Amino acid sequence: MQLTILGCYAATPRTYNHTTSQVLNIANHMFLIDCGEGTQMQLRRQKVKFSRIKHVFISHLHGDHFFGLIGLVSTFNLLGRETDLHIYGPKGIKEIITLQLKMSKSWTGYGLYFHELSSNSPELIFENDKVTVETIPLDHRVYTNGYLFKEKEGDRKLLMNEVLNYDIDKAYYRSIKKGKDVTLEDGTLVKNELLTSAPPPIKSYAFCSDTAYLPSITNQIKGVTALYHESTFLESHEHLCKPTKHSTAKQAALIAKEAEAKQLILGHYSTRYDDLQLFKEEAETYFINVTLAEDGKRFSFD
Amino acid sequence: MQLTILGCYAATPRTYNHTTSQVLNIANHMFLIDCGEGTQMQLRRQKVKFSRIKHVFISHLHGDHFFGLIGLVSTFNLLGRETDLHIYGPKGIKEIITLQLKMSKSWTGYGLYFHELSSNSPELIFENDKVTVETIPLDHRVYTNGYLFKEKEGDRKLLMNEVLNYDIDKAYYRSIKKGKDVTLEDGTLVKNELLTSAPPPIKSYAFCSDTAYLPSITNQIKGVTALYHESTFLESHEHLCKPTKHSTAKQAALIAKEAEAKQLILGHYSTRYDDLQLFKEEAETYFINVTLAEDGKRFSFD
Repeated sequence: MQLTILGCYAATPRTYNHTTSQVLNIANHMFLIDCGEGTQMQLRRQKVKFSRIKHVFISHLHGDHFFGLIGLVSTFNLLGRETDLHIYGPKGIKEIITLQLKMSKSWTGYGLYFHELSSNSPELIFENDKVTVETIPLDHRVYTNGYLFKEKEGDRKLLMNEVLNYDIDKAYYRSIKKGKDVTLEDGTLVKNELLTSAPPPIKSYAFCSDTAYLPSITNQIKGVTALYHESTFLESHEHLCKPTKHSTAKQAALIAKEAEAKQLILGHYSTRYDDLQLFKEEAETYFINVTLAEDGKRFSFD
Repeated sequence: MQLTILGCYAATPRTYNHTTSQVLNIANHMFLIDCGEGTQMQLRRQKVKFSRIKHVFISHLHGDHFFGLIGLVSTFNLLGRETDLHIYGPKGIKEIITLQLKMSKSWTGYGLYFHELSSNSPELIFENDKVTVETIPLDHRVYTNGYLFKEKEGDRKLLMNEVLNYDIDKAYYRSIKKGKDVTLEDGTLVKNELLTSAPPPIKSYAFCSDTAYLPSITNQIKGVTALYHESTFLESHEHLCKPTKHSTAKQAALIAKEAEAKQLILGHYSTRYDDLQLFKEEAETYFINVTLAEDGKRFSFD
């Protein structure tokens, strides 16, 4: 599992810094999460192949999280893409994108599928044999979802010495890896624990931006490998959190702690701060493993 | 009069190059012309003050000419702008921008005025005492206008020696500068030519992108100080001009020649070419004063 930050600043792009967008590489999928203006250029700079992106997850319809989407959709088309693209986001996103395609008379030559969201409860929105994606309903000024990406538990590992020792036929290997016990020809039951070891631990990633402090999400993301949580403000500006429905670095750390996350990544910094180290320091008072997101930063969770 | 190129590439942004946008500084106005994705970042990089931009002219609704507009409108708002912003562009542009503002619940705190265009004849769309802006209807796959920015002729200059020689009262100076003759107290008529010299020559700028070869525009832009004309292709790909409704560098040069432009600026290069010098060389076969647009390039016409 690998995460690349394409942009992580709040509200407006700066001269050289971008608003929210990131790519998560999990179970061989490249999931694009949010798509601020200039995301397509950031993808090029990070050498992410456009064709590998088949799913885009938009948290909410504030511009710093989706103004780059129409450009991406359009560029994919101009480059002759044929692979389907699935876009998950709040109700309304389809109208915004299709209106612009209509006005420019440029319908895509590839399949463009919108999955519009409007539920206020967590939903399973993507699933295959390797990975699931769930919404994490957040508390912001407009309808907003975070996303929880979770590997599925893999097969148990055969203990080959034991398997050969019991002289088990190869035909049973697949079911044993799935956790089944085996009954030998003489009727003896061999419990699965004797034949296998546990599968590698699953990895998961929770993206939570933008949101006010919302402790109720910690159950859903319990034990997550990495949590990206917005920290628009420092505690000194906590009074701004209520009207804007954003969080402080301290609050992000409290969520990480309560959720027993392995790692916290902070981002979505307000422009008012020059020294981002203050975010890290504030969060580290409450949670041990904190990293600051930065444009172009890569995280590996292996 | 000064022109700054913010982006000049066709179709899609590159890793470090932008699609069409430019700022024209004329008669103390900063006119933004087209607004490809990332224009707001390019404005910051070129240190153009956002507050000086009060008029935006969009040629057509292909993404490489306007996908940056919603970001600009939104950022102006987030920065607390109070000055009105006027947007001139094809019918439909208002719906695209206002839909996105509506979805993000972020109406602007400043006056946002749309001037939607749909005429196929040149129209005077802006005028004050110093400058006029006219549309130049072009021939593209969607409804498209170029724009002609023209200084108004200034006052004639007083020849002070002559004025004093005739002992003319100061009260007449203003009307003399406007070209009026003077009748002295003894009844003698003094012709204006004896009292004044011609005003400084007016400057003008024609932006023509995107368009197929359209010689009929040369009358309207006759004698223009600088002509920016798209040159998507080289002559070797002229067969692509008809289906895409674009021009070659040669065709741009022929327009400049026929219009008796003082200077030709080429831009809107297709991605297929690595060596942009070929555009300059091709155009120079037909017109003498050719410059290539590049991101960040500044032109002074003083």
